[in-house]
Amino acid sequence: MSSTYGDNLKLSIFGQSHGPAIGMVLDGIPAGLPVDLEVLQTFLNRRAPGQNDWSTPRKEEDRPEFLSGLLEGFTCGAPIAAAIRNHNTRSGDYANLKDCPRPGHADFTAQIKYGGFQDAAGGGHFSGRLTAPLCIAGGLCKQWLEERGIQIGGRILSIAGCSQTDDPLDPCAHAIPPIGERFPVVNPQVGEAMRQAIADARAEGDSVGGIIQCVITGLPAGLGEPMFGGVEGKLAQILYGIPAVKGVSFGDGFGAANLRGSQCNDAFAMENGKVRTATNHSGGILGGITNGMPLIFQLAVKPTPSISQPQQSISLSRMENLELEVKGRHDPCIVPRAVPVAEAAAAIAIFDMILGNTQTNRRK
Amino acid sequence: MSSTYGDNLKLSIFGQSHGPAIGMVLDGIPAGLPVDLEVLQTFLNRRAPGQNDWSTPRKEEDRPEFLSGLLEGFTCGAPIAAAIRNHNTRSGDYANLKDCPRPGHADFTAQIKYGGFQDAAGGGHFSGRLTAPLCIAGGLCKQWLEERGIQIGGRILSIAGCSQTDDPLDPCAHAIPPIGERFPVVNPQVGEAMRQAIADARAEGDSVGGIIQCVITGLPAGLGEPMFGGVEGKLAQILYGIPAVKGVSFGDGFGAANLRGSQCNDAFAMENGKVRTATNHSGGILGGITNGMPLIFQLAVKPTPSISQPQQSISLSRMENLELEVKGRHDPCIVPRAVPVAEAAAAIAIFDMILGNTQTNRRK
Amino acid sequence: MSSTYGDNLKLSIFGQSHGPAIGMVLDGIPAGLPVDLEVLQTFLNRRAPGQNDWSTPRKEEDRPEFLSGLLEGFTCGAPIAAAIRNHNTRSGDYANLKDCPRPGHADFTAQIKYGGFQDAAGGGHFSGRLTAPLCIAGGLCKQWLEERGIQIGGRILSIAGCSQTDDPLDPCAHAIPPIGERFPVVNPQVGEAMRQAIADARAEGDSVGGIIQCVITGLPAGLGEPMFGGVEGKLAQILYGIPAVKGVSFGDGFGAANLRGSQCNDAFAMENGKVRTATNHSGGILGGITNGMPLIFQLAVKPTPSISQPQQSISLSRMENLELEVKGRHDPCIVPRAVPVAEAAAAIAIFDMILGNTQTNRRK
Amino acid sequence: MSSTYGDNLKLSIFGQSHGPAIGMVLDGIPAGLPVDLEVLQTFLNRRAPGQNDWSTPRKEEDRPEFLSGLLEGFTCGAPIAAAIRNHNTRSGDYANLKDCPRPGHADFTAQIKYGGFQDAAGGGHFSGRLTAPLCIAGGLCKQWLEERGIQIGGRILSIAGCSQTDDPLDPCAHAIPPIGERFPVVNPQVGEAMRQAIADARAEGDSVGGIIQCVITGLPAGLGEPMFGGVEGKLAQILYGIPAVKGVSFGDGFGAANLRGSQCNDAFAMENGKVRTATNHSGGILGGITNGMPLIFQLAVKPTPSISQPQQSISLSRMENLELEVKGRHDPCIVPRAVPVAEAAAAIAIFDMILGNTQTNRRK
Repeated sequence: MSSTYGDNLKLSIFGQSHGPAIGMVLDGIPAGLPVDLEVLQTFLNRRAPGQNDWSTPRKEEDRPEFLSGLLEGFTCGAPIAAAIRNHNTRSGDYANLKDCPRPGHADFTAQIKYGGFQDAAGGGHFSGRLTAPLCIAGGLCKQWLEERGIQIGGRILSIAGCSQTDDPLDPCAHAIPPIGERFPVVNPQVGEAMRQAIADARAEGDSVGGIIQCVITGLPAGLGEPMFGGVEGKLAQILYGIPAVKGVSFGDGFGAANLRGSQCNDAFAMENGKVRTATNHSGGILGGITNGMPLIFQLAVKPTPSISQPQQSISLSRMENLELEVKGRHDPCIVPRAVPVAEAAAAIAIFDMILGNTQTNRRK
Repeated sequence: MSSTYGDNLKLSIFGQSHGPAIGMVLDGIPAGLPVDLEVLQTFLNRRAPGQNDWSTPRKEEDRPEFLSGLLEGFTCGAPIAAAIRNHNTRSGDYANLKDCPRPGHADFTAQIKYGGFQDAAGGGHFSGRLTAPLCIAGGLCKQWLEERGIQIGGRILSIAGCSQTDDPLDPCAHAIPPIGERFPVVNPQVGEAMRQAIADARAEGDSVGGIIQCVITGLPAGLGEPMFGGVEGKLAQILYGIPAVKGVSFGDGFGAANLRGSQCNDAFAMENGKVRTATNHSGGILGGITNGMPLIFQLAVKPTPSISQPQQSISLSRMENLELEVKGRHDPCIVPRAVPVAEAAAAIAIFDMILGNTQTNRRK
Repeated sequence: MSSTYGDNLKLSIFGQSHGPAIGMVLDGIPAGLPVDLEVLQTFLNRRAPGQNDWSTPRKEEDRPEFLSGLLEGFTCGAPIAAAIRNHNTRSGDYANLKDCPRPGHADFTAQIKYGGFQDAAGGGHFSGRLTAPLCIAGGLCKQWLEERGIQIGGRILSIAGCSQTDDPLDPCAHAIPPIGERFPVVNPQVGEAMRQAIADARAEGDSVGGIIQCVITGLPAGLGEPMFGGVEGKLAQILYGIPAVKGVSFGDGFGAANLRGSQCNDAFAMENGKVRTATNHSGGILGGITNGMPLIFQLAVKPTPSISQPQQSISLSRMENLELEVKGRHDPCIVPRAVPVAEAAAAIAIFDMILGNTQTNRRK
Repeated sequence: MSSTYGDNLKLSIFGQSHGPAIGMVLDGIPAGLPVDLEVLQTFLNRRAPGQNDWSTPRKEEDRPEFLSGLLEGFTCGAPIAAAIRNHNTRSGDYANLKDCPRPGHADFTAQIKYGGFQDAAGGGHFSGRLTAPLCIAGGLCKQWLEERGIQIGGRILSIAGCSQTDDPLDPCAHAIPPIGERFPVVNPQVGEAMRQAIADARAEGDSVGGIIQCVITGLPAGLGEPMFGGVEGKLAQILYGIPAVKGVSFGDGFGAANLRGSQCNDAFAMENGKVRTATNHSGGILGGITNGMPLIFQLAVKPTPSISQPQQSISLSRMENLELEVKGRHDPCIVPRAVPVAEAAAAIAIFDMILGNTQTNRRK
């Protein structure tokens, strides 16, 4: 495992789905940054399960206990540690996973890599539940970014093929639904179709995937350390730490491959004494460095692999094929709950880059 | 800049497009690995410019001089350093870039970040020319992977919307054209349409983008260190170090977002005593760890930003808009030359993961 | 703060002396390693305070709760997290430290660096109490090293100038007292003089320092990654993380500076088909790499800065000199309790190097 | 090998003693820093061999060629690469080292670690010659530190037991001889005794060691990131990258072990509105963080292992003992040439810490 992230801050995430606790340590954070634990809890609640008809009925409060690093509402310079106790565990549901791996899950690769010693219950350290401590760290970073005027907003771009339309030529088109919405879409009608698609899949014991888009505004130009510490690479590394993500793209992403240079290049223009681009195909990044326009990225989320339909699998001990029925409580679609996770991951990466911005702070 | 990559090996890339030399240092490589410099040169030639009608007429031999790390055809344990002299430079073409940035290039963000001290000639350290030392390192790693039975093959999936079709349900469909082809496509008719699209763009002073797909076979199951050292994250970080890449995806990628779980999950099956999956939607990765099936990823490459049509830009000194005509020699489409670069980047990331495979080697 | 250590394993230490808890996360450990929690507790008890007449009367049980990473007596591949609750806290003793810093402590530098936001109570994150989580990680690594036949033993070389004599020409002279001793010395008479020196200092409200020596046997030859990942550098980095350490040396250390080459070089000799050195001035390291002989290093520990005699200090707010009397509970000599800490730190560094031994494991 | 150093800057050193070239890449340096190549050459000349009667007669000009990263006298933000060609090589002198290792050298450990593939000529990558690229990087960092008012000065504290006396209670006693001296001592009479000791050793085919002390003035208080990124740990890691160093200590170092707390604690005092300490036993560091007083450290350098007297060694192939006579050109004492190397290493570590000073720059 390598559940440690960051060049300047150091985030370390721990826990298994059905172990005593999950949590995180966040090191390298300057002292004196304010922390509002109520705002953090509101953010964590956006990810928490058991609250509506598209998420697992497993109820966890996701209420972190801070073990260190905070003093009287501010960071104190010492590493920030927080843990969430696991209460509502039902390990018995997962007894057989080491021998008979679930398709689409990490059961098989964990068995190969960890030789049977892994904690398979609920997916162990691979569980989506581990995104809760990611949201603790990200929720804190979000607060500190907002202090600097940087906002990160995510929304659902598509679910099960039901897609919102956007005019990517217009940077202002990247509207963000009001922050805090549980099902953040711009077009309510499309949102209704998405919910219906989820309900249909649930009814059939199946699941659906989707695409999330995040927009980051207020970023200074000049952030990012190419070649390998560029904005895209830093964001992609942490975003791929979110289970079920199969694609990450920036600006026009894969759509850029179909454009001509004359269409894809964003013309520069002076606007009230500031440099802007007329369009934002680049997603706010040129050469791995922010250009001051909104940073835009997309995440492809595969359908939840846990479905209740029978599936073909194998017995590793008997080396034979068999049919598997997955039990347990699952989300028919994790896309809505993954939106705050994507925001959290982006907040961590951006705050790390701001801490390490060698150029802007240091030449003076 | 952060042009250093790797957890176990350490790759450091240096140089500017029109400076004295470009090159790389590759540290952390075990002693005793064989190096075939002719095979390496053949690989580097696939990327080299000036050889056909879709690449820039700038001719550079890309013939590296090895300064250290090799002894009598083997690595000697010391860091491997190599440099390529820059000969065919025409800095005069780029005189005005600090004041009047080219749309789609890093001129503007470099000016903001480096305060005018950057080497703007030919894009400086942001130039696609810096992928040559990436190919030196990657070409070496490719040799060492091939020794272990691991093959990396890339091909052009689409250019300017001309796209090859694949049956992603069939893992065997991911055929790789013979290695070494300059324009690697599976379907020659589609390849012809792609070349025509490039020729059309060139005739109109424009450029086109495309999508590259790489397939890695022979990988052991169990590679990858989730959460943040998973296979996707490690590959994405280095792939985004290639200029013009706007998207990276694995397996079905963004297409997975439209599938149901029952379609996207790859059923397990025993086949001659080995575990296989009937399909390969996951691209050979579950939970950030290889499952022994072919690893498949895609890169979205935006159209070359250098076009000869007039474009809207600005004068930073005069703070006013103006029209810009970009001179210099450029590729109307960099996708074919980017194929070996993608292979090289993947080879570096995979070899790094093999060196650091804590689990497989170390429990025993 | 940068309380994260390691290239292959990743250790993250958190907590403040009087905060809710102290603890650690240890990531990157292979699955399937056995863990004996009783053996660990016995090791932790060697460091725990309040047990005899040379340590602080503050009593803490130092009994860690494991939050993740262990399953049925083995590591499970997921990060290992453990926390120790702080119970016996008396923050009131430390109220004034932000304004009036104690000489020899980090109060002043913390005030400058963290701008008054630091948790000053009991030294906060700078407290010697933070060596308890270091001992959790190190105690685990020690178990895993012992499984491979590697033993780490520490002893007190001198306290307050009372010094044991050794013949450094004889590698067998580096005898280690039986493991688990609270006051590990080879010569009991010298040990008695040391205890008397501690008692004298305590009686006068003063403190004393000393020198610790550790010997590591059973190491394979070939460990260490020079130039900057050599054995000495890796060990020194973690050993300097122990509060009060002012010097680290290897083999003959500073004594080597007075020798001639003909005295200091260790002659090679074949002994029963194995390569040995006749002497061990080098401390088992040549060129940053272990040579298979016992690895020997020394730590200089300054006298505990907390003394009850009046001292000259300042008021930062009033910018004037004043006389300070330090209250609170303190060790008149931390050297005996620092012995297991030095062993723990060395165990972490050595296990990290074994995990990352690129050469030995990987060429085959 | 792990010849890469740094958290914020990334230094990569390459080359073997008798390979085509030695050199370095220095990444992560802000753009716009001035570089004076003449001042750099003067610094490099202090280390260069062949210039006087205490160094090897091998003559190398140590004149680096800069391959990238500089533009018109300033850093340009891109990685800085420089190489020095090896001209005056005599590989034949070292033919037998793989079978018959020299005592005190890395021949044996390299043979074990690199399995015979290492470049043994002249010590290969282990050669003291590799300190030349360290001095390129360090010489640049020194210039940038001097711009900020930070001076690093080294001197010889003892050679062969001939020792200068100092009053460590007086921080002003740490006088530095004029920078640029080839044999920097404070007391000329002691210096004469040192030179005589070197001459005596040379006459007898032997060698001598010594102790170097460096003093860094002008440092801001607040530098260093404890626990594991503290000033001592960061400096020790790079200093142990210098061949022949067997001990690193700070302030009173091993002498602190003999003091009482009441002697070793440095009393604080206000002096013209600034916080000072009356003494400087701590060497300017408290809790791993600079306190604004001069930073003082010592290096123990063992006697050069290359001596011309016959020594006992072995034949690895024949597994038998034999007598060895080492040929080649050697320094009877490397201490004088190691002084600028120690300064260079310290400059790199300090500049790295300044770049990454998360607290001072970032809270605002």
